[in-house]
Amino acid sequence: MATNGIISNGKDRSNLIPFSSRLREGRALAQDVWSIFNAANLPSDCINLGQGYMNFAPPQWVKEAAEEALNSVATNHYSHPKGRLRLREAIKAHYEPDFGRSLNPETEILVTSGQYSVFVAFLEQGDEVIMFEPFFDQYLPSVTFNGGVPVYVPLHPPTGAGKQSSHEWTIDFDELRRAVTPRTKMIIVNTPHNPVGKVFTRPELEQIAAIAEEFNLLVMSDEVYDSLVFDDEEHVRIATLPGMWDRTVTVGSAGKTFAATGWRVGWLIGPQSIIYPTLAATTRIVFCSNSPLQEATAVGLEQAKKRGFLKQQCDEYAERRKILTDGFDKLGMKYSNPQGSYFVLLDIRNVKWPDDYPFPESVLGRGRDFRACWFIAMEVGVSSIPVSEFYCEEHTSIGEAYARFAFCKDVDTLKHAVERLQNLKKYLA
Amino acid sequence: MATNGIISNGKDRSNLIPFSSRLREGRALAQDVWSIFNAANLPSDCINLGQGYMNFAPPQWVKEAAEEALNSVATNHYSHPKGRLRLREAIKAHYEPDFGRSLNPETEILVTSGQYSVFVAFLEQGDEVIMFEPFFDQYLPSVTFNGGVPVYVPLHPPTGAGKQSSHEWTIDFDELRRAVTPRTKMIIVNTPHNPVGKVFTRPELEQIAAIAEEFNLLVMSDEVYDSLVFDDEEHVRIATLPGMWDRTVTVGSAGKTFAATGWRVGWLIGPQSIIYPTLAATTRIVFCSNSPLQEATAVGLEQAKKRGFLKQQCDEYAERRKILTDGFDKLGMKYSNPQGSYFVLLDIRNVKWPDDYPFPESVLGRGRDFRACWFIAMEVGVSSIPVSEFYCEEHTSIGEAYARFAFCKDVDTLKHAVERLQNLKKYLA
Repeated sequence: MATNGIISNGKDRSNLIPFSSRLREGRALAQDVWSIFNAANLPSDCINLGQGYMNFAPPQWVKEAAEEALNSVATNHYSHPKGRLRLREAIKAHYEPDFGRSLNPETEILVTSGQYSVFVAFLEQGDEVIMFEPFFDQYLPSVTFNGGVPVYVPLHPPTGAGKQSSHEWTIDFDELRRAVTPRTKMIIVNTPHNPVGKVFTRPELEQIAAIAEEFNLLVMSDEVYDSLVFDDEEHVRIATLPGMWDRTVTVGSAGKTFAATGWRVGWLIGPQSIIYPTLAATTRIVFCSNSPLQEATAVGLEQAKKRGFLKQQCDEYAERRKILTDGFDKLGMKYSNPQGSYFVLLDIRNVKWPDDYPFPESVLGRGRDFRACWFIAMEVGVSSIPVSEFYCEEHTSIGEAYARFAFCKDVDTLKHAVERLQNLKKYLA
Repeated sequence: MATNGIISNGKDRSNLIPFSSRLREGRALAQDVWSIFNAANLPSDCINLGQGYMNFAPPQWVKEAAEEALNSVATNHYSHPKGRLRLREAIKAHYEPDFGRSLNPETEILVTSGQYSVFVAFLEQGDEVIMFEPFFDQYLPSVTFNGGVPVYVPLHPPTGAGKQSSHEWTIDFDELRRAVTPRTKMIIVNTPHNPVGKVFTRPELEQIAAIAEEFNLLVMSDEVYDSLVFDDEEHVRIATLPGMWDRTVTVGSAGKTFAATGWRVGWLIGPQSIIYPTLAATTRIVFCSNSPLQEATAVGLEQAKKRGFLKQQCDEYAERRKILTDGFDKLGMKYSNPQGSYFVLLDIRNVKWPDDYPFPESVLGRGRDFRACWFIAMEVGVSSIPVSEFYCEEHTSIGEAYARFAFCKDVDTLKHAVERLQNLKKYLA
């Protein structure tokens, strides 16, 4: 845990400009899981299945569009804070069939770099935000930095003995209903889900929608993995359920869709009543997203379907998933087979290490999964992410049963990782 | 003024999710000056000297570096939230001579997309932030969104009859001192100054520094125009004054330095005690800035001095400035000759229009300068920005004497604009 003491670097603290108390909330100053399991701390040849970025490049034709943008003038300068019109038009055309309605690119689509602006635009001091655990770790400080209070509702993991699917992570709807109070403002849905890989079913989303309607809640539906859904699973958008358009903002991402996590181009789709305040916020936070990569993303969305790119990419990810899960099967370990996203949760409860194993300070005093992930990285050379990081303290015991492995890596890397993971056999109880 | 009414689009407002009260502060929902004077509202052939973006591209060798980054794998994916190491190393090398100290790229340099994260990291509810008027309009919502209270101290414009320089915009230091209260947390310095073009002198910065020291204030020194200083003027960095390093964060920008306003790559330099909390904030707001253009910016900074690029660019801007100010001289209009940045403030008090001139709603009820800028754009076909937008309501009368003209345009465009501006002669009283 970093503190003012660390920041002061040993100097007299009284001389320092005090930082805001909002940084004391939402684990903002804690050493986050990404730093602990950073490549720099692990064996130099460790295969990184921890962080969710690809070890391959965006498609050539999308990169060429970026180069073209770099070689024009206007596409190197400020974009409209709403986003470049060409990209908004491309988002409109790409999403209209899914949404089953006409989308107005001037009022219902906003290009952004992150979801933070939604929280700035809507949260009042003390407003409660419901999030399902495990939750994408960025949600928490987005809530607390803007005066909100997180309220956690866990997805309940599968309990059966046999093969498991991400579908078997379930919501207890009584529990969800009990989490709603007069101060509840917003509920965050994430489908396909990071890290579970769950694609929320229509009945599940209908029940969430009913609660949102009954209590007049804003729904942020983070669907950044919407192009990665397997096994002919139906990806339902909660915004398309009856009555839900007016209260839902849907989040999309070029990073996930075009293997370009470093491009920082994303978008929000929703009614003017949500997009307009969010535009007011994002204009003041980042003014606009970067222009050349917006232009390239526009070309990406314009051509993705007709090139058959999305189908092909999905098939490739399904193959990658199979390599990893076959490896887990061979080991005889339990995992939740994901219907979407590029993550697999491995049940690590039966991984055992010597009592005197030398763990660093950073993983001691955290969930058991922190030690398990550290041990696996050090002993077999494959890194993953401990899932208790995505739970509140009270629910650590649910999360610490799992490690998250990312399969957004090329086939050779995954095969190599799977080979190494077989060495885990001798540590399984 | 947009309101919940406008946002609701005529629907029953009671059904809408209410947006945050923070949007009612800091003019966040007001129609901003950029929308009013947007190209779409002006004659189609209007020459845009309003917005401060270039109508020329970044240097070829910097764009080539961006293309190279696009053609690697890692440079298309997430960067470290601190920024890419290569860019932090380049910032270190570029700025160390100026700062006269060694800069630690791990703890004293942070790549960002905007200054917003500083306000998130440091402002407590009710903290006061002093800003000099005219102020860059993004500062205001950055303060109010994070619970801060803006306190305005005007720069006093020149009063003499003859030629004027941006130097003659002065601070009344008694006034500045009176603006400090027990709740003052921060003071924003902007040098070279947008929109005045003033390069703050060493004695001025020394007096600001003395007040910052006396009252333990954080200083945000926005120096994004630091590569555009003319007439052998000395650009002094307030962070380099005795005792000031520990309380100052200095802001730089690739957009201004490499004619790439749409790249959204900037940086902060300061002590660990300021950079660390700001990193915690920016990590949660945007996670990281876009990777390919960070990499290109690194190459830009690595090579800028040895290629003689900055000197040459500065000479080109000085030539552009001269074209514009020669045009004003020919018209016999007063202006403040800027020592830095790419803006000229033109004194428009003697521009007269017919009493029955048809102004749109958007410029009525604002400062006189809104009508003057509208009139000039419509009648002579050159757009500019009314300066009262950069003042609080109480001080509108100072700002409405001026229009801001940007000279970050190519020579032909500026010559053409100057020709058109001669048509203003018949409207001068």
